[in-house]
Amino acid sequence: MFSNMRQRLFRQFDVEAWTQPGLSPANIFISAVVVISVVSVIIETENSIRNIFSEFFYVTNLIFLAIFTVEYAIRFWVAGERPEFLGISGRVRFIISVPSLIDLIAIVTFLIGIGGSDVFLFRILRLLRILKLARLGPVSRALKGLVTAIMERRYELVVTAGLAMFVLVISATIMYFVERAAQPEAFGSIPRALWWAIATFTTVGYGDVYPITVIGKLFASIAALSAIGLIAMPTGIFAAAFSDAFQKDRKQIEDESNGV
Amino acid sequence: MFSNMRQRLFRQFDVEAWTQPGLSPANIFISAVVVISVVSVIIETENSIRNIFSEFFYVTNLIFLAIFTVEYAIRFWVAGERPEFLGISGRVRFIISVPSLIDLIAIVTFLIGIGGSDVFLFRILRLLRILKLARLGPVSRALKGLVTAIMERRYELVVTAGLAMFVLVISATIMYFVERAAQPEAFGSIPRALWWAIATFTTVGYGDVYPITVIGKLFASIAALSAIGLIAMPTGIFAAAFSDAFQKDRKQIEDESNGV
Amino acid sequence: MFSNMRQRLFRQFDVEAWTQPGLSPANIFISAVVVISVVSVIIETENSIRNIFSEFFYVTNLIFLAIFTVEYAIRFWVAGERPEFLGISGRVRFIISVPSLIDLIAIVTFLIGIGGSDVFLFRILRLLRILKLARLGPVSRALKGLVTAIMERRYELVVTAGLAMFVLVISATIMYFVERAAQPEAFGSIPRALWWAIATFTTVGYGDVYPITVIGKLFASIAALSAIGLIAMPTGIFAAAFSDAFQKDRKQIEDESNGV
Amino acid sequence: MFSNMRQRLFRQFDVEAWTQPGLSPANIFISAVVVISVVSVIIETENSIRNIFSEFFYVTNLIFLAIFTVEYAIRFWVAGERPEFLGISGRVRFIISVPSLIDLIAIVTFLIGIGGSDVFLFRILRLLRILKLARLGPVSRALKGLVTAIMERRYELVVTAGLAMFVLVISATIMYFVERAAQPEAFGSIPRALWWAIATFTTVGYGDVYPITVIGKLFASIAALSAIGLIAMPTGIFAAAFSDAFQKDRKQIEDESNGV
Repeated sequence: MFSNMRQRLFRQFDVEAWTQPGLSPANIFISAVVVISVVSVIIETENSIRNIFSEFFYVTNLIFLAIFTVEYAIRFWVAGERPEFLGISGRVRFIISVPSLIDLIAIVTFLIGIGGSDVFLFRILRLLRILKLARLGPVSRALKGLVTAIMERRYELVVTAGLAMFVLVISATIMYFVERAAQPEAFGSIPRALWWAIATFTTVGYGDVYPITVIGKLFASIAALSAIGLIAMPTGIFAAAFSDAFQKDRKQIEDESNGV
Repeated sequence: MFSNMRQRLFRQFDVEAWTQPGLSPANIFISAVVVISVVSVIIETENSIRNIFSEFFYVTNLIFLAIFTVEYAIRFWVAGERPEFLGISGRVRFIISVPSLIDLIAIVTFLIGIGGSDVFLFRILRLLRILKLARLGPVSRALKGLVTAIMERRYELVVTAGLAMFVLVISATIMYFVERAAQPEAFGSIPRALWWAIATFTTVGYGDVYPITVIGKLFASIAALSAIGLIAMPTGIFAAAFSDAFQKDRKQIEDESNGV
Repeated sequence: MFSNMRQRLFRQFDVEAWTQPGLSPANIFISAVVVISVVSVIIETENSIRNIFSEFFYVTNLIFLAIFTVEYAIRFWVAGERPEFLGISGRVRFIISVPSLIDLIAIVTFLIGIGGSDVFLFRILRLLRILKLARLGPVSRALKGLVTAIMERRYELVVTAGLAMFVLVISATIMYFVERAAQPEAFGSIPRALWWAIATFTTVGYGDVYPITVIGKLFASIAALSAIGLIAMPTGIFAAAFSDAFQKDRKQIEDESNGV
Repeated sequence: MFSNMRQRLFRQFDVEAWTQPGLSPANIFISAVVVISVVSVIIETENSIRNIFSEFFYVTNLIFLAIFTVEYAIRFWVAGERPEFLGISGRVRFIISVPSLIDLIAIVTFLIGIGGSDVFLFRILRLLRILKLARLGPVSRALKGLVTAIMERRYELVVTAGLAMFVLVISATIMYFVERAAQPEAFGSIPRALWWAIATFTTVGYGDVYPITVIGKLFASIAALSAIGLIAMPTGIFAAAFSDAFQKDRKQIEDESNGV
């Protein structure tokens, strides 16, 4: 009976053991709890909220801790269903496997976290597990398609990135020469001018630094206008790569439906 | 004679009963009045204008009210031309149907609105009706094409949105650790840092928050540069999806003209 | 001999009479002078420069005036080569034709302009003539291709523009309700909130207005994120439309080279 | 034995003499040193770092100088392997060839630079050499593909650039008339208004200048909204051009694999 229950839990908790499409109810529940716990920890960093709802956060954290501990215990137990994690040496191998380590550290930091620490980055890492879980069904197909399309055009993207770096450095160097006398604080060195260059070429434009001399504004205008080109390049490459991928996708679906 | 008039009004006011292409003159007029009344209400919220033209707004509002009331009465009357709205129970069903309720609430809030209230959101909702009216002719074909193209690539867009969320949270978390000591007001919690992250990754860059430490600027530079990629992703997916849809569109038109 | 000279000048000054590819030397020269005179007038509006080089500008303006007057006289004379401008009534028709009127007004405002006026908009309108001149050769083919591609997808662009307007108005309305108490100056009416909405949805983000309340920042975040979608829509439509047009272009060239 | 060594060094240092795929170990090393030396010189401009690590920079600069001098000497020596650089007149031709001159000036400015000068632009120019080195393998293929795709659509890009210039000048002119009374400092001349126009149409939006009058904000809103179209145009052209190029690319690969 115990063995039967372990098998059923294994099918629930092991992503690949689940034979039906999508995720098992147990993994959907765990994923939801991970997301909620991450959102909770994000909100908790805001002192004005934490101070008012401190008891609420204390209780929910305890609940998260209980759920994650039970989950870890179950995963540890059902790991025996896989030959590679069988026996004591197998369980040790299970404990030191990367996803289990992340789980364990998430629990331990959780324990410390209740005391008021900020070491919760590992809980965010558990989100990566959801990404792994997401490698199923149509979302997985979409992800794979996008990654393949981007990888196929990696050299084009490398060329664009290289060109962008070159233009960023040259622009920052010119602005350093042009503006440093007028604004030693903002343009007194090339690294400082690079901060301006990045804000300009990405069109973020915080407005904390901008040229004030006439020649500086002239060069900044040229830089801002060429920024459109530099942003259009990767966008165009992505668009073309995806267009290519979608066409192959469609052709494959058509061929399949034609029984080829 | 009354029955004949009801039939003619029905053909004028019911979108689907109009057999000619485009909208009926009555519906074009009503749509125009809705748009003008929304523009009017938007301008009216500006006190400096409202105070000067208060009488003008009072009169125009009365005119809008009269038009919308008459329109509602006509729609109520001609509803009987449709079997589902026949008889008393049919008319009740007409009154509690969603578009009629929006019309009714628009009129009622209008009545209250003349007294100086701000409850005019329902008038804006009537704009949705125009969208419904717009589901005709070439604009409809275009809308359907765009929606189909986007829906076909919904999983790719979900992947991009998920990736964007992940990057936003991670970036905000890093900036929270890096900048909170220097700027507790702007980066004192992850939700606060998220405000910076959104302004940066969307390249809006209001400039109310930006890193001031060297490490903060370094991370913000990486964030701003990767923002280009995150914006290029959905743009590329849209471009590829539309390209796909337009090609099918063209092929269909060619096939039709070839008599296939 | 006079008639022969008029014919030669006609071929030089009339765009369509020039049989060789590109522009005639006379029209290249005139176009260059128009561009230079526009740049000159732009720079002249800057008082700090005008005050120093006032004599220089006086002389160059006289030269521009002389060139444009001579050009007008020649165009008036050679217009007789075209049957529709023959005789006195033809010349009157020439004077009141739109391009000639623009030329005439440009000269007259020039005369007034030397006295210190700002009425130089007509000189900028002459730039439109260059656009007309540009309707030749490969640039013309490119322009026609782009316009055709955009026109073919005008309904898709109308849908996107309509959606953008709707989202802008709704966003401004929400922010008006959320932020008006905290910032009556910036969000005290929907038209004021629209100024914020446009700066946000176009990702310009001047930073003169931005939400300061928590709920306002939450809505602004959603607005900023959906801005990416609204910008990606027309970009995607343009990309797909151009892709379509370029493919037809290529196919046509291939067919021509195959002698079809 | 000397001749044998010269031949081997020639194969190591001359990009085209290297028969294996990729770069020779010697050129990889030199490229890395050039990049590191440029990064070093960029960081060195920051006084706060330079003052602390002045001795470190002194030593690393000496090392860079030694490496570049030895490299120059080797390149000078092995140049004799090429017929065109043979003999004394050949070596003179080698010295006055552009890449050698850049190398020489880089070394000389380096020598001066140790004394505290800013004349290091020539070291950045040496990065161009890396670009030349990069003209190999799949990165080269990608670069050539992108350049070909852009060149094929140069007329479309010229049309877009011309349109953008026209819209920029017209917008700046309108804002100059509308805002100059309210903000003489920011909009007192068309060149000043152009600074606003560029910040707006590129969506950089520093926030140092923005309209404050109602009519100014109205025009700026129209300008900001049309900015989306102006940015979407080149992005769409790039996307379509790359899409075209990638399809040809794929077809060629398919044809090759089919033995055509």
